[in-house]
Amino acid sequence: MLKLEGVLSVLPTPFTTEGEVDLQSLRNVIRMFLKAGVNGFTALGVTSETNKLTDSEKKRVIETVVDEVHGRVPVVVGTTAEGTQTCVESSRLAAELGASAVMVSPPRMIKLNSDAVVRHYKTLADAVNIPIVVQDYPIISGYAMEPALLLRIVREVSKASAIKLEDAPTPLKISRLRALAEGTPFAILGGLGGMYLLEELLAGADGAMTGFSIPEILVEVVREFHAGNPEKAKDVFYRYVGIMRFEFQEGIGMAIRKEILRKRGAIANAAIRDPGTKLDASTLQSLEALLAWYRKEGCPWI
Amino acid sequence: MLKLEGVLSVLPTPFTTEGEVDLQSLRNVIRMFLKAGVNGFTALGVTSETNKLTDSEKKRVIETVVDEVHGRVPVVVGTTAEGTQTCVESSRLAAELGASAVMVSPPRMIKLNSDAVVRHYKTLADAVNIPIVVQDYPIISGYAMEPALLLRIVREVSKASAIKLEDAPTPLKISRLRALAEGTPFAILGGLGGMYLLEELLAGADGAMTGFSIPEILVEVVREFHAGNPEKAKDVFYRYVGIMRFEFQEGIGMAIRKEILRKRGAIANAAIRDPGTKLDASTLQSLEALLAWYRKEGCPWI
Amino acid sequence: MLKLEGVLSVLPTPFTTEGEVDLQSLRNVIRMFLKAGVNGFTALGVTSETNKLTDSEKKRVIETVVDEVHGRVPVVVGTTAEGTQTCVESSRLAAELGASAVMVSPPRMIKLNSDAVVRHYKTLADAVNIPIVVQDYPIISGYAMEPALLLRIVREVSKASAIKLEDAPTPLKISRLRALAEGTPFAILGGLGGMYLLEELLAGADGAMTGFSIPEILVEVVREFHAGNPEKAKDVFYRYVGIMRFEFQEGIGMAIRKEILRKRGAIANAAIRDPGTKLDASTLQSLEALLAWYRKEGCPWI
Amino acid sequence: MLKLEGVLSVLPTPFTTEGEVDLQSLRNVIRMFLKAGVNGFTALGVTSETNKLTDSEKKRVIETVVDEVHGRVPVVVGTTAEGTQTCVESSRLAAELGASAVMVSPPRMIKLNSDAVVRHYKTLADAVNIPIVVQDYPIISGYAMEPALLLRIVREVSKASAIKLEDAPTPLKISRLRALAEGTPFAILGGLGGMYLLEELLAGADGAMTGFSIPEILVEVVREFHAGNPEKAKDVFYRYVGIMRFEFQEGIGMAIRKEILRKRGAIANAAIRDPGTKLDASTLQSLEALLAWYRKEGCPWI
Repeated sequence: MLKLEGVLSVLPTPFTTEGEVDLQSLRNVIRMFLKAGVNGFTALGVTSETNKLTDSEKKRVIETVVDEVHGRVPVVVGTTAEGTQTCVESSRLAAELGASAVMVSPPRMIKLNSDAVVRHYKTLADAVNIPIVVQDYPIISGYAMEPALLLRIVREVSKASAIKLEDAPTPLKISRLRALAEGTPFAILGGLGGMYLLEELLAGADGAMTGFSIPEILVEVVREFHAGNPEKAKDVFYRYVGIMRFEFQEGIGMAIRKEILRKRGAIANAAIRDPGTKLDASTLQSLEALLAWYRKEGCPWI
Repeated sequence: MLKLEGVLSVLPTPFTTEGEVDLQSLRNVIRMFLKAGVNGFTALGVTSETNKLTDSEKKRVIETVVDEVHGRVPVVVGTTAEGTQTCVESSRLAAELGASAVMVSPPRMIKLNSDAVVRHYKTLADAVNIPIVVQDYPIISGYAMEPALLLRIVREVSKASAIKLEDAPTPLKISRLRALAEGTPFAILGGLGGMYLLEELLAGADGAMTGFSIPEILVEVVREFHAGNPEKAKDVFYRYVGIMRFEFQEGIGMAIRKEILRKRGAIANAAIRDPGTKLDASTLQSLEALLAWYRKEGCPWI
Repeated sequence: MLKLEGVLSVLPTPFTTEGEVDLQSLRNVIRMFLKAGVNGFTALGVTSETNKLTDSEKKRVIETVVDEVHGRVPVVVGTTAEGTQTCVESSRLAAELGASAVMVSPPRMIKLNSDAVVRHYKTLADAVNIPIVVQDYPIISGYAMEPALLLRIVREVSKASAIKLEDAPTPLKISRLRALAEGTPFAILGGLGGMYLLEELLAGADGAMTGFSIPEILVEVVREFHAGNPEKAKDVFYRYVGIMRFEFQEGIGMAIRKEILRKRGAIANAAIRDPGTKLDASTLQSLEALLAWYRKEGCPWI
Repeated sequence: MLKLEGVLSVLPTPFTTEGEVDLQSLRNVIRMFLKAGVNGFTALGVTSETNKLTDSEKKRVIETVVDEVHGRVPVVVGTTAEGTQTCVESSRLAAELGASAVMVSPPRMIKLNSDAVVRHYKTLADAVNIPIVVQDYPIISGYAMEPALLLRIVREVSKASAIKLEDAPTPLKISRLRALAEGTPFAILGGLGGMYLLEELLAGADGAMTGFSIPEILVEVVREFHAGNPEKAKDVFYRYVGIMRFEFQEGIGMAIRKEILRKRGAIANAAIRDPGTKLDASTLQSLEALLAWYRKEGCPWI
């Protein structure tokens, strides 16, 4: 079965200056990130501005990612939906288009409860033939899942083989989940822009799935950690985590991320779709100060 | 310009026992409600389970409603979306398919602010050629709009000519809005299942837009009220409001509503799509007790 | 052990025109409600404006209620607090002052979880010698408890012998809880202003604990229901539920309730403490229309 | 008038192993932080576990802080309350006990609106004779204030001379506020554990008010920044921000902070009051790894 580990990059959705999806820039990001050594991709994640895309745009994004990646690493596709049936339909489409797995949050619903969540994942698992990544991001989904519920899902739904865990404090939750699991096997991937990657690894995560614009840093941290060199992993992580922190600012994070990708030459245009907080002069100035300092300190990727 | 007033029924989306959209039952509801005297319809509202429909299902629902109504009363179509561009696209489609107006809530977004909300409505108004109903339902949209912001929207966006006001306590908010508006003309329609219809009319509403399953009651209340017979309006309203109260229960309201419509012969099957709270034995027993009592009291519509 | 059932009235905290707690009016309410036949009282509930009282005011309220009630019916005292230790201290004080039971919601806390909630109730139970009413009101407490958690609390904390259940739809949750409990004994009291009292009784509630201003109606519904006359209970309930509905409006409910109590001669002044939504002209007009109609229909209590 | 700027440390409330307030440890923290060069203190802030203290404990904390500080720097006291009257009373008490200013969030209330917020601050300002720091921390207070409302408050309430701004992304909000203010004078202090201190200063903040356990870092950043050495400020900030990031983890931040203070010898015991997330083995291990690395890198304060 597919084993998700290492660094999986959540892909941004670049737009042209006319506001259309820029598939060429999307391909460029994939190439740059593959060269950076990432272990997989996620298309149509939360930070891909997925909720601002039409169905046909989503389809073209999946096709482009699958085509560009060309089987070299797994491609996860986000198919979270408010209805079980629509979630099944987009998941089937993703599988047909070549996705390696789908990523799904609990459906947004007033008065949702744990039984309904389990049923949602079960129905989905019965209908698709690829693994499911359970996304645990209560700020976005509106529903908090305690470790016992997450464990119930991975135990009752065998296709649910990985959890993208973004319910802060993530290191604490990961270690609770591992303790409670008593050996039940499933992958845990951190998120949150890589801000707690080292602590997540120490707590038992298998890697990270996040859209951070300089995945080279994450790749090096995970590689050294998994190679048994935690001191080298710490060295890289503590040195650079100030960048992850800055990029992962609530509300404006995606605008910052795209601007870094633009500066790195990966995308042609940093615009995000409305409504969305745009990069203001002050944040841009702070970004440039930050990049200049890290460049001066010898960061090879910026 | 289109004047929305009286009773506009938000249409349910009936499903077959196989889970498909049941367009014939939808037509039946429209016929029954037209006979009941409603002044308009809303397709794809919150309680139409719109967030569980695919794009192609939504399109067929609009086509069916427009076809069945056949110009006799206005048809409003809900096109709330998380992205401005996707909202514009569905609104244009609705207009092309014959919608009289679109109904739009603020887009769901972390860190949304009032300027972004106004910009969303402005961009939409520039792109469509039909009126906009501003839906004010913070429990669902996640964003509370104070009277000053609502007034700013109707003043700066001339196509925004009506507000569907569902921010309880609605009578208080309607009277504040009317006081603040100092004569700026715009329609206010109550919602919330008709539970406060009389009080909303007393406070300055022009009618109600809601999916209540026995619109005959609402029609009679509004008709008597507008005909200058408030005492008759009160008589009908106070007598029957216990039904509105029961139907409009958080979480399970739609299941109750569909069951009443099934009992009335309008729809073939009361099922709602997953995830959704199903009618349990206890609620069903309570519903039957309620209907039996009102029947005994001489309610002609159940 | 204390058995809570029937109608327990949550007491308002009346204020003088100078803004001080009006203990005489509080005594008047108790007398009027005892005459109405209520089976108990709750002091310092959510709608008692408890969060706007000082510690010394709270103490005087408890003393006054206990003194005026004089052992004729149980007195429950709300002691919800954000800290376990402060909750224990106020609960001990309430017990010393003569409370029959304390009522406690989960503590408000970012990242609260079910284990922490159980621990909170356990620590409290170990520290006080009177029963605990578990209040389940997520809109106010910020924390939703599923039936399984409520059941875990009443099973693991023997002093937790009653649940005040206000998580709508309450009839559905009550019936789920009773089914899941398989005979584990505990009392369930509805709330929400009595708006669903009949349906709650049908689902298995033992009564209601609420501040509705005309408890005579609730008393009659519960009495007839428990006497084996459900038809009479329905008759009273369906006839009058329009009043409960009107009073229990979000945000402005307490202002309406106090105005009715003022009109009934129980309290001298209907003011509520800042910040709080005041009764506006429109709501007052609607209240008068409502009371006039019910008076005309023969309601003996208004 | 009092000018708040630089670094104001929000004081923790240390507890003994028996769970009592440890006033001696509190004094030790003050001494250590004064030596670190902080420009003021805040007692009874959110992270002081204020909501778990009794009224008499709060009083003793204020007395101790005022006594130990002895006029060398300003002492701000948090007096946020759900009622205007109780807020006034605690604020008056704080002033009598020697507070230099009070810090107040909007009162927690269902259906709060901007007029009610302004009225709350006005009533408070009329009743106390010391400045008011407006705390803008929507995750905690439950109410988001847009820049226009904050500006309205500082303009209409002259005693409201400072804003503690913790509505992320803070740098963006600070720069919007400064632009909108067009010169209206008021202080802006960042918070959020110092995680964005440099960016906040670049955006126009006057300093920070936060409980970060190594204020030496913040002091150096602000001192260099205000001395016209932004490059030196950046050097310190970017080098150490990984620590601020780690400490300021949602839910568990206070437990981490107290543990660092314990390790630094300032407090005798790191316990936090129930309910509260305790330091687990995994987080402790991560903390030690972090401190070891920074120590190795030459950080003089750990």
